[in-house]
Amino acid sequence: MKYQAVKGTRDFYPDDMAARNAIFDAWRRVSLRNGFVEVDGPIFEYLELITAKSGEEIATQLFTLTDRGGRELAVRPEMTPTLARMVGAKAQTLSKPIKWFSMPRLCRGERPQRGRLREFFQWNIDVVGEGGPLADAETIFTAVDLLRELGLGPDDAVVRISSRPLIAAMLTHLGVAEPDHPAAYALLDKAGKMPVETMAAQWDERFADRLPHAKLVELLAAESPTALIERTGTDGPAAAPLTAAAETLQSTFDLLRNLGITEYCNFDVHIVRGLAYYTGVVFEIFDRAGQLRAVCGGGRYDNLLAALGGPDLPAVGFGMGDVPLGLLLDEKNKRPPAGDRLDAYIIDAGPEFFTQVLELTAKLREQGVACAFNYRRQSVSKQLRAAASRNATVAVIVGQETGERGVVTIKNLANQTQREMTTSELLAEAQAVTHGPDEAVQ
Amino acid sequence: MKYQAVKGTRDFYPDDMAARNAIFDAWRRVSLRNGFVEVDGPIFEYLELITAKSGEEIATQLFTLTDRGGRELAVRPEMTPTLARMVGAKAQTLSKPIKWFSMPRLCRGERPQRGRLREFFQWNIDVVGEGGPLADAETIFTAVDLLRELGLGPDDAVVRISSRPLIAAMLTHLGVAEPDHPAAYALLDKAGKMPVETMAAQWDERFADRLPHAKLVELLAAESPTALIERTGTDGPAAAPLTAAAETLQSTFDLLRNLGITEYCNFDVHIVRGLAYYTGVVFEIFDRAGQLRAVCGGGRYDNLLAALGGPDLPAVGFGMGDVPLGLLLDEKNKRPPAGDRLDAYIIDAGPEFFTQVLELTAKLREQGVACAFNYRRQSVSKQLRAAASRNATVAVIVGQETGERGVVTIKNLANQTQREMTTSELLAEAQAVTHGPDEAVQ
Repeated sequence: MKYQAVKGTRDFYPDDMAARNAIFDAWRRVSLRNGFVEVDGPIFEYLELITAKSGEEIATQLFTLTDRGGRELAVRPEMTPTLARMVGAKAQTLSKPIKWFSMPRLCRGERPQRGRLREFFQWNIDVVGEGGPLADAETIFTAVDLLRELGLGPDDAVVRISSRPLIAAMLTHLGVAEPDHPAAYALLDKAGKMPVETMAAQWDERFADRLPHAKLVELLAAESPTALIERTGTDGPAAAPLTAAAETLQSTFDLLRNLGITEYCNFDVHIVRGLAYYTGVVFEIFDRAGQLRAVCGGGRYDNLLAALGGPDLPAVGFGMGDVPLGLLLDEKNKRPPAGDRLDAYIIDAGPEFFTQVLELTAKLREQGVACAFNYRRQSVSKQLRAAASRNATVAVIVGQETGERGVVTIKNLANQTQREMTTSELLAEAQAVTHGPDEAVQ
Repeated sequence: MKYQAVKGTRDFYPDDMAARNAIFDAWRRVSLRNGFVEVDGPIFEYLELITAKSGEEIATQLFTLTDRGGRELAVRPEMTPTLARMVGAKAQTLSKPIKWFSMPRLCRGERPQRGRLREFFQWNIDVVGEGGPLADAETIFTAVDLLRELGLGPDDAVVRISSRPLIAAMLTHLGVAEPDHPAAYALLDKAGKMPVETMAAQWDERFADRLPHAKLVELLAAESPTALIERTGTDGPAAAPLTAAAETLQSTFDLLRNLGITEYCNFDVHIVRGLAYYTGVVFEIFDRAGQLRAVCGGGRYDNLLAALGGPDLPAVGFGMGDVPLGLLLDEKNKRPPAGDRLDAYIIDAGPEFFTQVLELTAKLREQGVACAFNYRRQSVSKQLRAAASRNATVAVIVGQETGERGVVTIKNLANQTQREMTTSELLAEAQAVTHGPDEAVQ
């Protein structure tokens, strides 16, 4: 073929599309049952909105274009700027809390690699207008509910949860002052990706005088926020925010226990999230073995909407990409089954019956039955092979007896049984007849 | 708000998104029951693919961007180039006929106006690998099946059907030679948008010597291809292709009668379709009164795939835009009902019962029940108001009796009846209890 697809993008042939739809269906089903409503925005925004949120450095990863009026646009690299703009435009009339989900197509001009493409889809869950740990817990619950929906158990995946104010207060309390926090965050974030000796050396080079790596490791082994502050102690001038942040995050963990998903949730102070705008809980979901990229990341961002010129509303949310989720499902052999199938394939026993095939097909489709017929007038056995290749549940054969006695032959293609039925009986029970026994009992 | 949406794009707030999903669901349902399988491609393609198909002039309407490698890309303005590329890449392995549908997001840089936006969605139906009128008829049937699915009857909308080879052969037969065909097509296409006197003057200025407008009008009043060639006559050196084209199109109309949709279908030689690549049947769907833009346009394009460097396969298909379809549904008051609703809203009779609310919510969601709870601990009456504002089917009240006797109160918010039930009964019958009677019988 003369023309190729753009590098880092995907063509969705029928099997690929069925797999994508299976993920989208799960995202939507889980969102709705958790009380979220769906929204979407345009594929591009004015460039200034994107850079205002994400900073100039992300501009190098953007697909930018110029409006006919000369204004610069960007294909959206994430949903949050659009969400902020949309909430801002209707902040007065939207009833709070705003619980929105979306499944946008996003584009980033980065070098394509395993788990990262230039074009992908991302499930977004956001609760806007509610500042407490209950919204944090429900947001995390919704992410875990998706894992469960896809058959991923706590042995397959884990939510690693921390809190930006907790990490900040801990560092300050232990003598690492605020100007040094970004460097400490960067090391914590990278700790999982380097040998422990390297981490120790890099950490101690900078922080040994105040918080030696050996002590840090001991603290980070704490299994809960409460356990952490038992180890740090809560005496001293900087202890009040530490205690408050630990209590808030502990409340979130307690709520997650009430919601029955403790097995999925680990307290993990290494999770800091790269982006500067998080103000509370932060979390990421990984495969339990820790061999793949994060499939989901999120947290609380109470100041972002106001920073973008919108209303001053607290918010918490996450994004989950279809590409890393797909890799995890493949790894765990949990891809939802999906495939091309038809309810019925309508066959003529001879070309003279084909007009009746068309009439019956039209009526069955009107009943919602997915059906097809052969474009060529071929033998019954060839038409039956075509029916099998489309995974039809039944074949309906129209022949001499259809004109004479008004009956058609229904052949079940799974077990090869067949029976006669009048066309009016077939139309009256179309759904039951053309669905397999498994579907019929659903 | 400081930032605006890009002009000519739409924000999909929950109600807008529900309306969009209702259209998408109908597109998908109708596609599947007509035996089509879903595909999609990337949002951008290399510019040369788009211009190869659509010509350089469409490039002025494109949103173009430059790859980091310096290659020019375009946001897709239509699906057909992508379809051609995808079929071409796997032409050997795809079994024929290829029956594909897609619902791509498309962008065009034109001036926004009623029924035309810079970003929209388009339902695409294509049959590739089958050249006869049966594929033409099934394609048109699928478009009509969508109209019926949305409650649009033959008084609401009409498919106007013609054939490029038939028009060409008719013009040649009547003395208008091929070099003059584009001018004749352009006038036929515009005829509906100008007063008949203007059309007559413009036509006669160019063609009066060979085919006076009065005679054209008389010919175009023919109600079928067969009737048309009865009026033109079939004698003369150029009559053979005219007869052949009329017979092919008449076959299509006969098949449409077998499929039971004659009432929707008009033979109309004014339909020529602007694009040069059509090689057979062409059709457009309009509101019956002819006051709105076309909601759908399509036809046979047997040479396009080969012209794009792909396989030499015949093809027929159409595109239907969500924006003109939405205008037609609004005009006919046929928007599918859609709105935010929940199955259940879980309420605490006092803050001390809230932990049980969380536990029950998690279990109900596991059963697939869409439910929510209040983030604030408020009075039962306030929580009931919140339940009503989310259109919950039932409220489930957890209180003293839940701990003592294991029961909750189920309040039906439509008729205000209430009853007690144990939580295990509720969980066992969750779907039945939390769906209204209307849904339960579906």
